[in-house]
Amino acid sequence: MQLECSKCGKPAVYLRRYTSERLCQACLVQTTTDRVRRTINRHKMLREDDRIAVAISGGKDSAVLLHILNKIESNFPESELIPVTIDEGIKGYRDKALEAAKELTKSLNLALEVFSFKNMFDYSLDELVELRTDKSLGACSYCGVFRRRALNEVAETLEADVIATGHNLDDETQTILMNIMRGDSRRIARTNVSRERSVEGLVPRIKPLSELSERDIVAYSHHLGLIYHDIPCPYSGEAYRNDIRSFLNDMEHKRPGTLLAILHSAEAVTEALLTSSSDWTLKTCEKCNTPSPSEICKACMMLEEIRG
Amino acid sequence: MQLECSKCGKPAVYLRRYTSERLCQACLVQTTTDRVRRTINRHKMLREDDRIAVAISGGKDSAVLLHILNKIESNFPESELIPVTIDEGIKGYRDKALEAAKELTKSLNLALEVFSFKNMFDYSLDELVELRTDKSLGACSYCGVFRRRALNEVAETLEADVIATGHNLDDETQTILMNIMRGDSRRIARTNVSRERSVEGLVPRIKPLSELSERDIVAYSHHLGLIYHDIPCPYSGEAYRNDIRSFLNDMEHKRPGTLLAILHSAEAVTEALLTSSSDWTLKTCEKCNTPSPSEICKACMMLEEIRG
Repeated sequence: MQLECSKCGKPAVYLRRYTSERLCQACLVQTTTDRVRRTINRHKMLREDDRIAVAISGGKDSAVLLHILNKIESNFPESELIPVTIDEGIKGYRDKALEAAKELTKSLNLALEVFSFKNMFDYSLDELVELRTDKSLGACSYCGVFRRRALNEVAETLEADVIATGHNLDDETQTILMNIMRGDSRRIARTNVSRERSVEGLVPRIKPLSELSERDIVAYSHHLGLIYHDIPCPYSGEAYRNDIRSFLNDMEHKRPGTLLAILHSAEAVTEALLTSSSDWTLKTCEKCNTPSPSEICKACMMLEEIRG
Repeated sequence: MQLECSKCGKPAVYLRRYTSERLCQACLVQTTTDRVRRTINRHKMLREDDRIAVAISGGKDSAVLLHILNKIESNFPESELIPVTIDEGIKGYRDKALEAAKELTKSLNLALEVFSFKNMFDYSLDELVELRTDKSLGACSYCGVFRRRALNEVAETLEADVIATGHNLDDETQTILMNIMRGDSRRIARTNVSRERSVEGLVPRIKPLSELSERDIVAYSHHLGLIYHDIPCPYSGEAYRNDIRSFLNDMEHKRPGTLLAILHSAEAVTEALLTSSSDWTLKTCEKCNTPSPSEICKACMMLEEIRG
C-alpha cells in the first residue's frame, strides 16, 4: 500500500518521525526549508543585509546548509553567501571532501574560498597530531580549537557579519549531553550563545540546522541529489560521543521528539546560566588578541606546545 | 593476590570505582559514613536540634540512610530521628517491606511510625490504580504524588523539621536525565531545591545519600548485614527510567565519576534557574491549602478524578 503525503496527498517517500508527517519529495524539501527558516527567525540568526560565511566541509550537513541558505537568501538581495572551506590538512580525506565542496558550490553558482591550517598556523592537522607532546589529547581536540580560530580569522578577513555552520540536531544534543555528563554545565551556555549575545571580537556563529535531525538531512540531500562526500574522517570515532550517539538514536527512535526536547532544555538552561551570572566576560589573549577565557588562548597554548 | 585497603593496608573487600579506593570492611563503612556526612554539611541539610522524619521503605536505600543517620546524629543529642513508613497499600509487597522496616528500626532501638494511603486518602494505591479513569497514567504517577503529599502531612503531624529520603546518586542522575530528555528543565530545579530554599508550607526534604552510588549502598548494607527486603515493587519497571538506568550504568562503568559529574551539572543548573527567575513562588491549593504550582494541587486533582 502506498501511503499518502500528509500535506498534499501525493505518494509519500519519507516519514518525519518527530512530527509524524508522511511527506512526498516536494513537501519533504519544502517543510525542511521551512523548518530551517523558522529556526533562523526564532533565534534572530540573520539580518537582511548579512554577509554570511558558510562553513563547508564537503559533507552532507554543510551541503544541505548551503543549499537551503541559498534558497532562503534569494529573497534577500542585499545578503551574500560566502562558502568557506578550512583545509585542516588530513591526507587522503580532505582532498576528496574539497573536491565535493567545489562541485557543490559551482552547481549553486557560488565561489568557494579555501584556507588551510598549514598557511594560517604553519602546521597541517596531520603535523600537529604528529608533533603534539600530550598524546592523551586526541586529534579532534586540536582540530576543534584550530578550526574555530581559523573560521573566525577567515570571517574577519572576508568581512563576514556571521558564520553559519552545519551542526544538526543530533550533533547538538550529543554535545549537550556530553557537557552535562562531564559536569561542564558552563560549556552548555558557551556553545549555545545566540547572535544577540555574541562576544565582541568574535564573529557571531549560527547553527541554522540545529532543529533538523540527521535523518532529515540525509533524506533532503538524497532526494535532491546534492553533491557531498561521506568518507568518515580518519581521526573520527571519539568513543565518548559514539556511546552517547547510539543511546540518543535509540531513545529518539523509541520516543520521537526526545532530541528536540533536549535542545529546548539546553536553551532554557543557557538562558538561566547567562542571566544569573555576569561572569561571562572574556579576557584578551596576550599572544593573538582574540577573546579567550584565559590569559593565553587555547590555540596559542597548543602552538607553543608544538613549537616546543 | 589479595589487594590491600588504600586506607589502612588490611585486605580489601571493595573497590569504590569513582574514587579508585580499595577498601577493607571497616574503611568501607567509615568512608561511606564520611561521604554522607560531607553531603549533609556541604548542602547544610541538617541542624543540631532537628527532629528528622526518615522515610523508610523497607528497601536497602532507606536502611542505609537510617543506619548512617543514626550514627551521625548520635553526636547531636538534641536531634531526633523518627522513622516513618508510608503504606501505599500494594498487596503482596508492602506487607513484607513493612516487616523489614520494623525489624530494622527495632534493631536500632527506634520506633517506626506507619501511616497508610487508605487512612489518609480513603484509597490504597491498588484501589487508586483500579479506579483511575486515565489508564495511560501509570501507577508510579499516582504513587509519587500521594507519597509526597503523605510524607509532608505526616512530617507536619509529627512536628518534624525536615524529611530525609533515601534517594541515591543513581536515582538522582536518572531523574535529572529524564527531565532534560523531556524538555522539563524547570523540574530539574524543583527536584533539587536545597533546605535553605525550601517553600513555606512544605516540610523541607533532604537527600543525604545523593552522592552515594547504588553500588556503594549495596556494599555497605551487605557488609553490615542490614535488614532490608529487595523484592521489586509489582508496579515498577518504568520503561523510560530503565533505558536511562542501563545507559548510565554503562557510562559510569566505562568512565567512573560520570554520575557525580551529572549531579554537579544539575546543581549548577538549579542554582542558575532559581536565581535567574523570580517565578518560583507557588500558589495555595484551593482544596487542601498546601503549596502547589496550580490552583488545585495534583493530589486533589487525582482524588477528584477517582471520586468521579
